[in-house]
Amino acid sequence: MPTNATVMPGRSNRTAVMDGIGRLHIEERPVPQPGDRELLVEVRSVGVCGSDVHFFEHGPRLNVFKPPHVLGHEVSGVVAAHGPRATRPPIGTRVAIEPSRPCGICSLCRGGRYNLCPQMRYLAAPPTEGGFARYLTVPEDFAYPVPAQISDDAAALIEPLSVVVHAARCAEIGVGARVLVSGAGPIGLLMTQVARAIGAIEVNVSDINPFRLSLAETMGATRVIDVSAATPSAVRLEVDVFIECSGNPVALPDGIRCVRPGGVAAVVGMIPTEDATIPLAFMQTREIRLVPTFRFANSYAAAIGLVATRAVRPEAIITGHLPLDRVETALRAGRNDPRSVKTMITAQA
Amino acid sequence: MPTNATVMPGRSNRTAVMDGIGRLHIEERPVPQPGDRELLVEVRSVGVCGSDVHFFEHGPRLNVFKPPHVLGHEVSGVVAAHGPRATRPPIGTRVAIEPSRPCGICSLCRGGRYNLCPQMRYLAAPPTEGGFARYLTVPEDFAYPVPAQISDDAAALIEPLSVVVHAARCAEIGVGARVLVSGAGPIGLLMTQVARAIGAIEVNVSDINPFRLSLAETMGATRVIDVSAATPSAVRLEVDVFIECSGNPVALPDGIRCVRPGGVAAVVGMIPTEDATIPLAFMQTREIRLVPTFRFANSYAAAIGLVATRAVRPEAIITGHLPLDRVETALRAGRNDPRSVKTMITAQA
Amino acid sequence: MPTNATVMPGRSNRTAVMDGIGRLHIEERPVPQPGDRELLVEVRSVGVCGSDVHFFEHGPRLNVFKPPHVLGHEVSGVVAAHGPRATRPPIGTRVAIEPSRPCGICSLCRGGRYNLCPQMRYLAAPPTEGGFARYLTVPEDFAYPVPAQISDDAAALIEPLSVVVHAARCAEIGVGARVLVSGAGPIGLLMTQVARAIGAIEVNVSDINPFRLSLAETMGATRVIDVSAATPSAVRLEVDVFIECSGNPVALPDGIRCVRPGGVAAVVGMIPTEDATIPLAFMQTREIRLVPTFRFANSYAAAIGLVATRAVRPEAIITGHLPLDRVETALRAGRNDPRSVKTMITAQA
Amino acid sequence: MPTNATVMPGRSNRTAVMDGIGRLHIEERPVPQPGDRELLVEVRSVGVCGSDVHFFEHGPRLNVFKPPHVLGHEVSGVVAAHGPRATRPPIGTRVAIEPSRPCGICSLCRGGRYNLCPQMRYLAAPPTEGGFARYLTVPEDFAYPVPAQISDDAAALIEPLSVVVHAARCAEIGVGARVLVSGAGPIGLLMTQVARAIGAIEVNVSDINPFRLSLAETMGATRVIDVSAATPSAVRLEVDVFIECSGNPVALPDGIRCVRPGGVAAVVGMIPTEDATIPLAFMQTREIRLVPTFRFANSYAAAIGLVATRAVRPEAIITGHLPLDRVETALRAGRNDPRSVKTMITAQA
Repeated sequence: MPTNATVMPGRSNRTAVMDGIGRLHIEERPVPQPGDRELLVEVRSVGVCGSDVHFFEHGPRLNVFKPPHVLGHEVSGVVAAHGPRATRPPIGTRVAIEPSRPCGICSLCRGGRYNLCPQMRYLAAPPTEGGFARYLTVPEDFAYPVPAQISDDAAALIEPLSVVVHAARCAEIGVGARVLVSGAGPIGLLMTQVARAIGAIEVNVSDINPFRLSLAETMGATRVIDVSAATPSAVRLEVDVFIECSGNPVALPDGIRCVRPGGVAAVVGMIPTEDATIPLAFMQTREIRLVPTFRFANSYAAAIGLVATRAVRPEAIITGHLPLDRVETALRAGRNDPRSVKTMITAQA
Repeated sequence: MPTNATVMPGRSNRTAVMDGIGRLHIEERPVPQPGDRELLVEVRSVGVCGSDVHFFEHGPRLNVFKPPHVLGHEVSGVVAAHGPRATRPPIGTRVAIEPSRPCGICSLCRGGRYNLCPQMRYLAAPPTEGGFARYLTVPEDFAYPVPAQISDDAAALIEPLSVVVHAARCAEIGVGARVLVSGAGPIGLLMTQVARAIGAIEVNVSDINPFRLSLAETMGATRVIDVSAATPSAVRLEVDVFIECSGNPVALPDGIRCVRPGGVAAVVGMIPTEDATIPLAFMQTREIRLVPTFRFANSYAAAIGLVATRAVRPEAIITGHLPLDRVETALRAGRNDPRSVKTMITAQA
Repeated sequence: MPTNATVMPGRSNRTAVMDGIGRLHIEERPVPQPGDRELLVEVRSVGVCGSDVHFFEHGPRLNVFKPPHVLGHEVSGVVAAHGPRATRPPIGTRVAIEPSRPCGICSLCRGGRYNLCPQMRYLAAPPTEGGFARYLTVPEDFAYPVPAQISDDAAALIEPLSVVVHAARCAEIGVGARVLVSGAGPIGLLMTQVARAIGAIEVNVSDINPFRLSLAETMGATRVIDVSAATPSAVRLEVDVFIECSGNPVALPDGIRCVRPGGVAAVVGMIPTEDATIPLAFMQTREIRLVPTFRFANSYAAAIGLVATRAVRPEAIITGHLPLDRVETALRAGRNDPRSVKTMITAQA
Repeated sequence: MPTNATVMPGRSNRTAVMDGIGRLHIEERPVPQPGDRELLVEVRSVGVCGSDVHFFEHGPRLNVFKPPHVLGHEVSGVVAAHGPRATRPPIGTRVAIEPSRPCGICSLCRGGRYNLCPQMRYLAAPPTEGGFARYLTVPEDFAYPVPAQISDDAAALIEPLSVVVHAARCAEIGVGARVLVSGAGPIGLLMTQVARAIGAIEVNVSDINPFRLSLAETMGATRVIDVSAATPSAVRLEVDVFIECSGNPVALPDGIRCVRPGGVAAVVGMIPTEDATIPLAFMQTREIRLVPTFRFANSYAAAIGLVATRAVRPEAIITGHLPLDRVETALRAGRNDPRSVKTMITAQA
């Protein structure tokens, strides 16, 4: 087995380490060894996700938190070394990294829904550490080469874009669909773009933040609804598909009341509570289905293709860049700055 | 136009007329004239549905109640006369009557989901009167001939059986499915039979009524769960599909917690309230879909086929027969007698 | 009943009447009376379809031909009068006309697949006459208002665009799809546009006509394949979905060999023969499905939306305009001019 | 690494080895060592498949044949030993063996269609050897425990039953379906049973062999059609789903002509030629889809459940048993004896 020095002579793996709720420090770690069929990736760009912010402030939603921990799961980079038996992609290839490591053999994996694998290890979900670092090891099968026209930032944002592509598929947004997106954060804005890119003829976007609504307009929203004035149901909107992207429990029942008979209400935004209240009687006589979506499966190729063909421009949601040393500032930006949507960490800066 | 005397000389149309909440009387009405492309049907058997009982006690769920009104929408009969331009089925044919009269031209009708037609007129849903009577007019296209091996009672029960067939389709119960049915009333018991008839390999049925649970066992339930002892989630049941047939708001979240990742929770039972509480966080990480179903579309042929091939025996849920004069007794039976499941009205008796 | 004079005083209905195979004359007919729930439409624009050309040269594919007959089924116009009980759209509204008149009550109509209705009457399919005329009567439910940004020509082309939208749905072209379109005629070119508009990331178009291939490039084709040099399978293309739009029996097996395992081969182009040869052994081990599509159902709203949002530009396929008097010239253009793709008849000129 | 003696002291692995086209001998081989996460299985029962017969007579359809080779892929047995890191099922467990070894990481595997994996290794498909032997090693994840009510023979026949379950799913046989099965061999007879078990209300079976047709009747066929008298299309049969199980190229177009508009023609039987002729014009105007099916994915659990609940009785197709020494006789039986349907090899006899 090669030593660390063999892999990246003279380099250390600078890493932003969370050592408690709301606490983070920079640490020089040894460069990790890629294992069997793994790659060592030199990280280029890492997006800061709302779930990173939530984890930093409150700890993990689904797992027990045992510090130290590393956040960051929207990652692009360059293949720096091959572990044993790894064969592709070649060293030097720029890649978007899918954070999934499913078991591959349970009935959900075999059935094509590996995002639901009970044995899933997901980048930055404890105990798996994430990508706010200079180096990362990943299974070769989850590193996707990206063409030259996809920037490092865009390659990192293939992850949230895959969330959106998956949700669009689950919600069965089809050609000619009229859509309501609640919440114009990173997911809602990418959803707006994707909905238009796949043939939606009406994309209504609701939020309380005027800056985000104005961004939505630049991304193809056909109508924006400022819910501080009136909610979508109050303005009697009717859509085929409603996609909840805000995580706000009030947005869900309001949006459901905008869905036509036979339509779909998808839920992408993670709610802060265990339970939710829905207008079930309204849904019953209209057969409105509720479709929660979770992460994604089999979506990276499509997401990369959408960016490569310029059908979707993920950089449009970026509102700032910060170097690796300033991850903590980035994690706090989301709460404090109403004009911050998506901050990218430049890992080698 | 023929006069009444022409259609059924010497007959009157004895009808059970609801003249107020909880009030009903028997009336001799003129035999109705079938309109354009309509049939006059001599009613044979009419099932008493839980929704009839609810309407009798509380008024309609969805419409404004203006007495007088006639209940009864699970109807079989014999074709007694053809209206103008009606051509089929021949006079004398025994028929199961689909209570639907959709508009036929809206986008939902044209899209194959006529049960959601906003212009739907449905037997016994005001202002359309129902079938607790000796005669009824129906559009020729919604009267389905039944073969000799289907009894008059079974022909009437094609209606609730169609509710169940539709729900099974919407819930995507497939070969090899493990199913939980909550509520062993008429719908739950028919669902138990249908689930087995379409390849479910496990059908768990929950209720608080031991008599109904014992009935469920005779209809193919592989396990019954007395929720007065422990709920399905308390016994850690895991199923692919959960079908809520009780209308009990507590049964819904409990059953959802039994659904495997990627599974479906269908809702057939009408809840008594406008809103419902669901364990959304649990559903999100598992992508458990909530699928409300409403009445049925394109289900009569399949339901008739299941009975004709003896794959389903709807008579098995019948616990009593009463003549037309005793509709009120029948409507009160559901509340008072724990061993009453489905009462049939013998319309010509 | 109003007389003809009442409906359009002083007007006659100039009509291009086919009186034999390859024979056509212009005739002044009385303006037709709209029937129950019908509209009288003043025709604006009518597209010449390849099936019109085939019919003119060879007679109908599916029906017996009894002259006289009127061709033309890609029609836009303006509502000129309401028949009895017609209520919408208002007189003066510009409309795209769906040529379908299904029965509305058979199991296919009720199931949402009215394009397969055995009782279908379709504009210009004998005995139903078509739209190469100044006036036409249509059921109010099949006249779709179009917004100002849709031209008369584009409104007429909603018909072939609906063929394409329907085929895209049947072929399950989804986000990220790699597509092969064989045949860059009107259907293939619209398919190219639609595929891009609904998220395809690769659209390969094959033809033998260099002019048509160059048109395909302007419509979003990511690659064009001149089959006079090498067929798609010869260049080892691999796609998720193949859509045969040429009607050429050789194109079908060649394209099928380009489909990845688990993919779809859709057939839109009508083949000239009864039978076709397919590489079934190749398809079996790869589970490649063959999906023939026929006309469309429930596609007009989506097609109109795609044009209204400028996601698709149907005028881009138009290569010429001719007045009603010159329908015969237009019918002959397709055969003779390699640079003719779609000729529009200006009905009032 | 343990030696052979460690695994099964004193035993040898008697194996029926094919050493050329139409040539086979019995050989005493060493008991194989189970590899990483593999099991050693003591074989109990092995079904003789038509593809074994075809291979024995003509060599493999899809691969190059390099003798020696071992046939047999319908296998049940008992877990005899665990390889390194194998954890389940316990030694002594009776298991049905799924012959699949997909790569697990390609887009088809990850998408849930591992039967189409280009890297698939399948029991008895060269270079992978099969199960006409006393011992076999299999990956632990493809050995399915069977309950006591499933016999060794039935456990072996879970393999062809899975072919049928998969085909039924692909063909979308649903509740109320009218089905035509062409070919009453092992696959056709199991399909007959499965169709009835999943709610088909009409199962028509065609063959030229009167004995097989009489078997079909005992398995739930509602009608049998002796094609030596008249084909299904000649008797004007109409069905929703046609499933070709004969491999006879003539049966395919005939059956397609029996499918109603909007229905499905599935192809399970492997055709002997590369190409097939289909009535495409007929299919186009009716949108009849052609759905080839290949082996199966994610079907073993459902197939086991159908047998465990006695909804399907696979033993009903068995017409003979032979010991391992007489595999050659069994391989020749299919051709010579019109009353032979499925021969089982008793591996330890």
